[in-house]
Amino acid sequence: MEALRAACTTLPPPDGGARQAIATRDATLTKPPGSLGRLEALVAWLGAWQGRPDPVLDHVRVVIFAGNHGVVSQGVSPWPASVTAQMVENFAAGGAAINQIARIAGASLHVVPMAGLAPTADFTVAPAMDDDTFLAAVSAGHAAVGMDIDLLCLGEMGIGNTTAAAALAAGLFGGAGQDWAGRGTGLDAAGVAHKARVIDAALARHAHAGHDPLAVARCLGGLELAAILGAVLAARHRRIPVLLDGFVCTAAAAPLACLHPSGLAHTTLAHRSAEAGHAALARALNLPPLLDLDLRLGEATGAALAVPLLRAAVACHSGMATFAQAGVSDRT
Amino acid sequence: MEALRAACTTLPPPDGGARQAIATRDATLTKPPGSLGRLEALVAWLGAWQGRPDPVLDHVRVVIFAGNHGVVSQGVSPWPASVTAQMVENFAAGGAAINQIARIAGASLHVVPMAGLAPTADFTVAPAMDDDTFLAAVSAGHAAVGMDIDLLCLGEMGIGNTTAAAALAAGLFGGAGQDWAGRGTGLDAAGVAHKARVIDAALARHAHAGHDPLAVARCLGGLELAAILGAVLAARHRRIPVLLDGFVCTAAAAPLACLHPSGLAHTTLAHRSAEAGHAALARALNLPPLLDLDLRLGEATGAALAVPLLRAAVACHSGMATFAQAGVSDRT
Repeated sequence: MEALRAACTTLPPPDGGARQAIATRDATLTKPPGSLGRLEALVAWLGAWQGRPDPVLDHVRVVIFAGNHGVVSQGVSPWPASVTAQMVENFAAGGAAINQIARIAGASLHVVPMAGLAPTADFTVAPAMDDDTFLAAVSAGHAAVGMDIDLLCLGEMGIGNTTAAAALAAGLFGGAGQDWAGRGTGLDAAGVAHKARVIDAALARHAHAGHDPLAVARCLGGLELAAILGAVLAARHRRIPVLLDGFVCTAAAAPLACLHPSGLAHTTLAHRSAEAGHAALARALNLPPLLDLDLRLGEATGAALAVPLLRAAVACHSGMATFAQAGVSDRT
Repeated sequence: MEALRAACTTLPPPDGGARQAIATRDATLTKPPGSLGRLEALVAWLGAWQGRPDPVLDHVRVVIFAGNHGVVSQGVSPWPASVTAQMVENFAAGGAAINQIARIAGASLHVVPMAGLAPTADFTVAPAMDDDTFLAAVSAGHAAVGMDIDLLCLGEMGIGNTTAAAALAAGLFGGAGQDWAGRGTGLDAAGVAHKARVIDAALARHAHAGHDPLAVARCLGGLELAAILGAVLAARHRRIPVLLDGFVCTAAAAPLACLHPSGLAHTTLAHRSAEAGHAALARALNLPPLLDLDLRLGEATGAALAVPLLRAAVACHSGMATFAQAGVSDRT
């Protein structure tokens, strides 16, 4: 656990030279300064983390981690836990939403079922994972990133995992179950209230985890959430920019922000989910979303949906003419 | 003018059968109901206007109308009017932002210079256009739409045209220059204040246009704005869905909403521009934007940027497996 903690607290910075070179070229392009808004910032962010004044998106990889959750036995989801495995098969067969959106994004799709889809412990009665299980999950996430990736999109699938994400967010940032519990895949108001009580019970049981983000992630998280943490960490050490998906993915990455003040600087939040806790979590992490389209599916769908925005940003930066090249007058 | 008015007030409705068929299929797809948020609504909107239960995006067309403005002589832009023609050449050479974004969007790009880029009259001293000039511009926009288009993205280029758009918005929806004037391509605060006074002078001169949206568009608009109105009207009569770009494009389309209560139902606002008046205009027209990325370039860049969102929405609807096909359990 201490090796992981050390890896989370000693992180490489972005390439300031690449960022400056991008700003210098941007100022010469045939548009009013700043008029491409966040597209300009996205190019600078990509280049700073890729360490290139000419960022590329040739190899975009979507990775989905799938896991099951013991807390499902508390009745926190309207769907049976068997759906996690069925959806993993659906990903393999090409029938899920992310298969379609990854194709539009020009991204490869990799699905990692965690621990043979065996569930974690029910965290209302025990830690979700022991040390070895947690570290193995983090390592699996780390290993799934791969090399020669220009952009990594992360996502998850796991019946019950919005309960784990809400518990994790509460454990890291404070508040009670009702502050973080949402409808998930489709709970009614009574179901959300029950889910909040389940989270409160988990928070009471694991109060001893205190303010140690890794202990909170081990006790209140889940296998696929731990894997996302490992993948975000691996990407940082390899200087791969990351698009985060919705509530579960953001909560999973959050411990790194708690362990290092710029721990998530290499990530961009792709979208704001309709899941109740996501807006507050995005604010707590100072991660303004790119999209806000009422998605609440997970599977990295929001992350993959944002990839064409980055492709457009890079295409403008690399393909536009300068004022001098185009013979366009500058301001009077 | 009365033939145009009749064409604006007798508009075809969407295909309710296609919309219902899309909703029926959507409910069978392997995702929680509603979890794709606005992507689901976009598919229904596309299908309802295309008249197809299986909407397609094989032929996406971006059309930019370019025009010059007599009001530029009042010093409302930091850029010289010659930039309009220079940017039209830049579009032809492939060097502008929209060339890059249209390529990412898989869209064809067509640029229509209005009236040889001759300017309108300075609307602080005379109507921007006489009847014949206005109707010719509307007709040119109508003719530019073409047939066999699955989706039309509209945009504009014209030094000075945020002044015309602000004047048009004020003429249609009330308020003074300061309520609608923004920084345009880069005015400072004093420049915006001057622009607002110029708009106020125009509003005072053309108060006789009263509440006739077509008279307001003729007196306070511009050639490329009139063309956009014609293109939006042609698209409606051919049941082609339209993505509107930023402040100028939205203001140009607005007269149709003033002439018919569902006049812009076949349009979706692609993005909220950073230009000051756009948020208020979008609210006045009840057009929630898809994107909000601080763009303020025009050229249909925001509209083209939203095309991949629609491609993703259509791909999910057409490509996803149903619960029955995938053997995924439905809710308990």
